[in-house]
Amino acid sequence: MDHDNIIATAHAMADAARAAVLPYFRSGALVAENKAVAGFDPVTAADRAGERAILEVLEAERPQDALIGEEFGTRPGQSGLTWVVDPVDGTRGFMSGTPTWGVLIALSDASGPVYGLIDQPYIGERFEGGFGHARMVGPQGECALGVRGERPLSEAILFTTFPEVGSDSEGAAFRRVAESVRLVRYGMDCYAYALLAAGQIDLVIEAGLNSYDIQAPIAVIEAAGGIVTDWRGGPAREGGRVLAAAGRAQHEAALALLADL
Amino acid sequence: MDHDNIIATAHAMADAARAAVLPYFRSGALVAENKAVAGFDPVTAADRAGERAILEVLEAERPQDALIGEEFGTRPGQSGLTWVVDPVDGTRGFMSGTPTWGVLIALSDASGPVYGLIDQPYIGERFEGGFGHARMVGPQGECALGVRGERPLSEAILFTTFPEVGSDSEGAAFRRVAESVRLVRYGMDCYAYALLAAGQIDLVIEAGLNSYDIQAPIAVIEAAGGIVTDWRGGPAREGGRVLAAAGRAQHEAALALLADL
Repeated sequence: MDHDNIIATAHAMADAARAAVLPYFRSGALVAENKAVAGFDPVTAADRAGERAILEVLEAERPQDALIGEEFGTRPGQSGLTWVVDPVDGTRGFMSGTPTWGVLIALSDASGPVYGLIDQPYIGERFEGGFGHARMVGPQGECALGVRGERPLSEAILFTTFPEVGSDSEGAAFRRVAESVRLVRYGMDCYAYALLAAGQIDLVIEAGLNSYDIQAPIAVIEAAGGIVTDWRGGPAREGGRVLAAAGRAQHEAALALLADL
Repeated sequence: MDHDNIIATAHAMADAARAAVLPYFRSGALVAENKAVAGFDPVTAADRAGERAILEVLEAERPQDALIGEEFGTRPGQSGLTWVVDPVDGTRGFMSGTPTWGVLIALSDASGPVYGLIDQPYIGERFEGGFGHARMVGPQGECALGVRGERPLSEAILFTTFPEVGSDSEGAAFRRVAESVRLVRYGMDCYAYALLAAGQIDLVIEAGLNSYDIQAPIAVIEAAGGIVTDWRGGPAREGGRVLAAAGRAQHEAALALLADL
């Protein structure tokens, strides 16, 4: 694998997605549709414009790779490498004007994600990890990413996007962890995973994720020294129920409370 | 009242608070204490540094005015005007690394807040309103603030900071509104009021606020065309239970569901 070329391509994709998506953010032109018949799952012109921009970079720079996206499905490749992208992760946050949505870009081989990038275009923040490096750039400049490390659950800060989390039993499992931590916060979408990689928080617990929601966070968090699994300690790269932790102590303690689903 | 001098002083206060507070954000130097014996109410060196910086601007520029702050209590004045400030509103968000806390600065006369400013130092966003103007500056430049206007509750976006909201009966009242809206989001601290003034969302409902939590949002939202009251439709400037709305329709519908507390 040509790491430099992969990283450059990922940044070019993120730059293109930023330019495509940002004009729709907090814009009156934003048109939301209801993708699902039941429930509220908005899809916007921003999603499609972002994914189209990423696809164009792929076809120009690395046409041999495959791509899996939320909007246009799977584009086959021949290299054994697959880009797994979500141009607007956190659509509900995006529609509400909160700067907590992100552009997610991951590159996976047969073993799972090996490189990932979480971009917040409005703030101008980019978190990336893989190939032995983990770093962020933002309004305050550039710095290395690193998780905060081990601490007991009683001192942990836990994030999830919405308090129901998922099904009734998933919600009950989450609340067992929530009752054991120091602080629970909501509403951050993919930004919560970036905060975990940046050493700010201890745990993110979510359910019902897709592969394109979690592959970039996995790469960034693992490169920063953290752990991402499903709620039984297995791989999380296909999505579903996800537990991300800043240290082994938080991971094991949360897993013990989640596993009894 | 010298509007230009008041506005210039407010911006000088916000600039000084930004410079004082931002070095503590996402810093390992952040030391949290437990202010309350029961529960989790962190106070940081950032709070104190921010309020000291605001106080210094007041004493240099407008020593005749009074000041009410979270950290150092009340400083008396002779002008009949009182600055009501919170250098770090949303301390839990601040400690978690989320860019949703803010510096709140309001100026009140006997009638309540007449000018207010909500500043988010990390993003570099500032929302202000009063004396016939409502505007914001941020990463995308400057623009006027204006609420999104009337719409039925079934199409409304509702924010609060944490799902419990307050007491059991306050939580139950909130949930009656939550069940009637299109989308509920959590975790934004004072940033939710800024989003309402910026035309992004319809309602913010909170309980247990202090005067310094709400006076700046009141001025910004009213200048942007919105409505802020308590849960019975009376003044909200002393804090407590607060309902902010982007239009009369959302306000009246939410009030009807909240009033039966």
